[in-house]
Amino acid sequence: MTRRRFTGQLDLEHGSVDLTHGSGGRAMAQLIDELFRRHLDNALLAQGNDQALFQPPPGRLAISTDGHVIAPLFFPGGDIGCLAVHGTVNDVAMSGARPLYLAAGFILEEGLPLADLARIVRSMAQAANEAGVAVVTGDTKVVERGKGDGCFITTTGVGVVPDGIDISGDRAVPGDAILVSGCLGDHGVAIMSRRENLGFETEIASDTAALHDLVAAMIAAVPEIHCLRDPTRGGLATTLNELALQSGVGMRIHEPAIPVRPEVAAACELLGLDPLYVANEGKLVAICPAERADTLLMAMRSHPKGRDAAIIGQVIEDPHRFVQMETAFGGSRIVDWLAGEQLPRIC
Amino acid sequence: MTRRRFTGQLDLEHGSVDLTHGSGGRAMAQLIDELFRRHLDNALLAQGNDQALFQPPPGRLAISTDGHVIAPLFFPGGDIGCLAVHGTVNDVAMSGARPLYLAAGFILEEGLPLADLARIVRSMAQAANEAGVAVVTGDTKVVERGKGDGCFITTTGVGVVPDGIDISGDRAVPGDAILVSGCLGDHGVAIMSRRENLGFETEIASDTAALHDLVAAMIAAVPEIHCLRDPTRGGLATTLNELALQSGVGMRIHEPAIPVRPEVAAACELLGLDPLYVANEGKLVAICPAERADTLLMAMRSHPKGRDAAIIGQVIEDPHRFVQMETAFGGSRIVDWLAGEQLPRIC
Repeated sequence: MTRRRFTGQLDLEHGSVDLTHGSGGRAMAQLIDELFRRHLDNALLAQGNDQALFQPPPGRLAISTDGHVIAPLFFPGGDIGCLAVHGTVNDVAMSGARPLYLAAGFILEEGLPLADLARIVRSMAQAANEAGVAVVTGDTKVVERGKGDGCFITTTGVGVVPDGIDISGDRAVPGDAILVSGCLGDHGVAIMSRRENLGFETEIASDTAALHDLVAAMIAAVPEIHCLRDPTRGGLATTLNELALQSGVGMRIHEPAIPVRPEVAAACELLGLDPLYVANEGKLVAICPAERADTLLMAMRSHPKGRDAAIIGQVIEDPHRFVQMETAFGGSRIVDWLAGEQLPRIC
Repeated sequence: MTRRRFTGQLDLEHGSVDLTHGSGGRAMAQLIDELFRRHLDNALLAQGNDQALFQPPPGRLAISTDGHVIAPLFFPGGDIGCLAVHGTVNDVAMSGARPLYLAAGFILEEGLPLADLARIVRSMAQAANEAGVAVVTGDTKVVERGKGDGCFITTTGVGVVPDGIDISGDRAVPGDAILVSGCLGDHGVAIMSRRENLGFETEIASDTAALHDLVAAMIAAVPEIHCLRDPTRGGLATTLNELALQSGVGMRIHEPAIPVRPEVAAACELLGLDPLYVANEGKLVAICPAERADTLLMAMRSHPKGRDAAIIGQVIEDPHRFVQMETAFGGSRIVDWLAGEQLPRIC
């Protein structure tokens, strides 16, 4: 890798981002060299061009983009850096794809401590490394103080879909089983408890994680999975409504079957949140033919990221495309779309 | 395309963005349906999944990402919407690639008038349509008032590189000719004159444009082009320094050969800017073997976006990797990297 001539190194201990770091000039080149390329190092990024070239493996490609604007930047269980990797890896993986490459666009606010930025970039690098994806190209912009909020990261991912896999939100059919991969609400509650400075006895950590390996294990066991989606903003309730609308079906879920940690349920009650609407960053919803549900469940539970997986309901015929829930007390209610905004800046 | 049930339509005349538009819930779904999908309509986007699937054509793929944070959002000759398409189409095209698909991530500030957002999205749609690329997937986030600046757009592009083309910033060799595709500085001066409310007699418009068709014509004429890069932030001076560093060469350019419109030169003098450092959004720098330079120049001048193309200098041996300029008065000076920040938020 070529390096530019600089008079001094970035002061990663006491320095902060200023407008010159977005200028296209010497300071930006230094930031890219000493921070981004150093930590995210890979052969494609080292090409040093404004784009990365790669020979795709055979098959269909999946592309997905996701902006990350979470506040605070650092939270129990993660930070915006690993979240920006996990979020996009997961959106790519929900097509059944194996993620290959990421592009990262940073929008930094003047004044962001370089130490914070370095921590974020290191976290991205570690998350990308663990997920087996490379950040192959990127971009950095700086906005004036008060025109941003520290750091926003938009990541775009590309992956390859194995032959014979056809997973899409419009493929749910009546009779299908609905599964979730684990306990709901951890991410949203972790963020909210940090924002509100609530000191719970047990700290609740975000579930932020890359799910592509869980997905690979699932499609190896049950290639005929119909739908996969990660219930992030808007939570399980919104994701199920999206899938019901897209597929033109209804859904019936069983409240007692939905896994929620007791401490998350308690925190939700305290915070006035409904765990069905709280964001997750390391969970997925799967819909598959009923007769394959047990096999899929077993495959999920055999994977560390699906240990607490559960079958939570079934797809039904419904011209209204409603999601209904049988409650723990034997009643039934409609689980509607999220109407307002429970948790701004959750991802 | 499936549409969701809403009680009323978005008020595109008097409404504004609020936090619910980033919630993942009903309001966000409505914004996506009534604005993004409506204007950017294509089969892949209509899949309605969190990712788009496509079968890539044979060949290497190029991927590039670019955040757009320009202020003001609307300026003479364009707006952030078309700029976000052109900027990324150009970054992809500078590898010699034909751009195929775009992903768009929006970060909106609470309070942005929906009328402005609609104008931006329509402009994106038109620019994408003209460039023959489809916006196939996207993401919308909303940040609180005072935590953003109206609208930031990060676009990521994917394109396919024709066989036999090998264009990279590290391929310049001594003896090569250096060309530019047209007059320099229009974009930066257009933005600055709008910011400063300068009423020049002739309004200077941004040159924002997609250059992939010019690139296609250039590589059809001279497939052995060594380097292509668009001189955006930091202008021609910074781009040449980047290429000199990457290739391990020096460069010598001739001031009188560098095309700058008289009104842009006059505005730069008034604003205290050096046109060599001012951003362009519809121009490119090309480096090719000297014996092919005239053919390349002719191909560029035959294209509407290269009418004012010129040969401006040559690559030389220089262990210091300096860019030198012979001035109009017969002297010579070093053209250094941009050191500070001339024009924040220029793209």
